[in-house]
Amino acid sequence: MKENYVTSWKDNMAFETEITGHKILMDASDKFGGNDQGPRPKPLLIAALTGCTGMDVVSILKKMKVKVDSFDIKTETEITDEHPKTYTKMHLIYEFSGKDLDKSKINKAVKLSQDKYCGVSALYEKALELSYEVKIK
Amino acid sequence: MKENYVTSWKDNMAFETEITGHKILMDASDKFGGNDQGPRPKPLLIAALTGCTGMDVVSILKKMKVKVDSFDIKTETEITDEHPKTYTKMHLIYEFSGKDLDKSKINKAVKLSQDKYCGVSALYEKALELSYEVKIK
Repeated sequence: MKENYVTSWKDNMAFETEITGHKILMDASDKFGGNDQGPRPKPLLIAALTGCTGMDVVSILKKMKVKVDSFDIKTETEITDEHPKTYTKMHLIYEFSGKDLDKSKINKAVKLSQDKYCGVSALYEKALELSYEVKIK
Repeated sequence: MKENYVTSWKDNMAFETEITGHKILMDASDKFGGNDQGPRPKPLLIAALTGCTGMDVVSILKKMKVKVDSFDIKTETEITDEHPKTYTKMHLIYEFSGKDLDKSKINKAVKLSQDKYCGVSALYEKALELSYEVKIK
């Protein structure tokens, strides 16, 4: 499958990418000559990863008829100090809360996303050390 | 260097990641049970890449005293048809317009970003086929 995108320089350090009708404005911080009108580009890699696996997990849990009250994914990362500054490690902590949650079903949903469905995880696994754990409150 | 992030499930298929004070809301399309309140997570990988290299190029061109009128980065991608659905190819087309643009300086700025500075390119190069070209109008 092929998909094409356009990113446009707006002003100063700001760039905008249109994704299926949604405009993502990115900008550098004041320190790096920007105006902080939007997020830095690199941490969007974290949003992409957690959004991808999060949506997998929510839809698998729905099929399993598991209802959670809250669901957060915390990401701990390590980045090189030298150029090109890039992620070398990402550790995801999937945190669920709810009433009488079925631990084994939740673990299975997360594992299915990580092993089979999440295309962002599949990509990062080739390039960095990716790990995860599940916490149920 | 270490950095931590939190992504929270909002409702239905929507997730939100906070990046240095900016909230990124992601959502699935109606077809996949979402409400299209934000972009899909996976194409954020394109925003991350083009924003990262775009900011490099703008700041290098500024140091070189090269002024451009417009600067777009078009991205052509290929994605696997099977799960995990992931990018296998990305081709960037850097398009510049302006008066009497110095082609060799612009080529050098793009090459410096791709070879030395852009941490997102460095990561993707380990996981997929990444290529680019420069067009000056």
